[in-house]
Amino acid sequence: MPREIRIVLVETSHPGNIGAAARAMKTMCLDRLVLVRPKRFPDPEASARASGALDVLERAEVVDDLDAAVAGCALVAGTSARPRRLGPTCLAPRDCVAELLAVPADQDVALVFGRERTGLTNEELDRCQIHLTIPANPDYASLNLAAAVQVLTYELMLARAESPAEAPDAAPASVPLATADELEAFFVHLEAAARDSGFLHPDHPRTLMRRLRLLFGRARLDQNEINILRGLLNALQNGGPRDA
Amino acid sequence: MPREIRIVLVETSHPGNIGAAARAMKTMCLDRLVLVRPKRFPDPEASARASGALDVLERAEVVDDLDAAVAGCALVAGTSARPRRLGPTCLAPRDCVAELLAVPADQDVALVFGRERTGLTNEELDRCQIHLTIPANPDYASLNLAAAVQVLTYELMLARAESPAEAPDAAPASVPLATADELEAFFVHLEAAARDSGFLHPDHPRTLMRRLRLLFGRARLDQNEINILRGLLNALQNGGPRDA
Repeated sequence: MPREIRIVLVETSHPGNIGAAARAMKTMCLDRLVLVRPKRFPDPEASARASGALDVLERAEVVDDLDAAVAGCALVAGTSARPRRLGPTCLAPRDCVAELLAVPADQDVALVFGRERTGLTNEELDRCQIHLTIPANPDYASLNLAAAVQVLTYELMLARAESPAEAPDAAPASVPLATADELEAFFVHLEAAARDSGFLHPDHPRTLMRRLRLLFGRARLDQNEINILRGLLNALQNGGPRDA
Repeated sequence: MPREIRIVLVETSHPGNIGAAARAMKTMCLDRLVLVRPKRFPDPEASARASGALDVLERAEVVDDLDAAVAGCALVAGTSARPRRLGPTCLAPRDCVAELLAVPADQDVALVFGRERTGLTNEELDRCQIHLTIPANPDYASLNLAAAVQVLTYELMLARAESPAEAPDAAPASVPLATADELEAFFVHLEAAARDSGFLHPDHPRTLMRRLRLLFGRARLDQNEINILRGLLNALQNGGPRDA
């Protein structure tokens, strides 16, 4: 089964943008749209702007939070207007899609777009191992949401046409990458362990956890590695074998 | 003075698309919009969709035909859904913008987008030395007009950032390329000469003239060459010097 490339829209205000994003996706051979708490959906304006991509709109999944939207994905990229003080380097669209397509071809990936006015929150960006920015006019960088989806899906289509991993006979990876939910469960585990150990101060947990997310996000952990890390955490939490 | 890169929209039906195109342009540092016979303009829907790019919309020029829109341009690229039986090779957006930026940096160029439903007519495409197609889903290739403008202006912005000809200190060409109107005047002259000579059959003029347009369109004639060709045509039309 070919991988899913999910387009995730978070708290979209204008239903017209949802429809236009569905249209943009279909023109670039993508059909898996996930909506996190859309303001109005379904909506006649979304259907009108979807034009001939009504099927994508009708199969769109509506979920309650970003974790649900990216569950099962081996790599998640989120749009960001600017690099954050503590975050991964912001990639350009072309480099971002190359990273997404470098994931073994039997594993799903996601591209996440934020709200029209305010984008993604820091907490949502923490869930994304890749941050990306569309190069734009420094004096007016405000791309329409669906226009941003069109640029990214266009780059995805070009890159997929050239990617050997997208060939129908590409071999699956020997060990799958950890999925977004497995990664998230690991971070919850890690944070609990860090807190219980006294290493993580309960009043200032943000920076440390963000640094750890960055580090492990860059590493593109596979499932064996997640299991090893969680086994290690368990052992450390239980005090481990004492010196004989 | 830096060159103008004109975005030309021909007979746009929906004013919202005009506004959204202006917004797409401004995000990619372009501001010269030319509208050929728009159905409704100005229009509140255009202004609403332009968002922070109202200035581009307000400076948009409205003209009566494509010739007026591309007057003075040294190279004109037109969007086409598919290659025509008799036309230049359809370039991909990236190759198209490379050609446009290869024009000497003191000469204007234009990118022409057709009607929402029917695109550009064959006659309009004859005015374009370059045809371009955005790669898309063969089952649903219908990009929204403003989304197509966003993709092309995005590619233009990336290419301009890397183009030596766009550097502020780039040297102008020693001989400027012929402009669209000079080229058109030459074709009118050529057609008249071909007709007068009896070579062009008045009942089937289309194919021959299209082949000639293709040939000279590919050649990217400069102004010296146009002058030479027109001088030659004049001489030939007047019979030229007889054998002594």
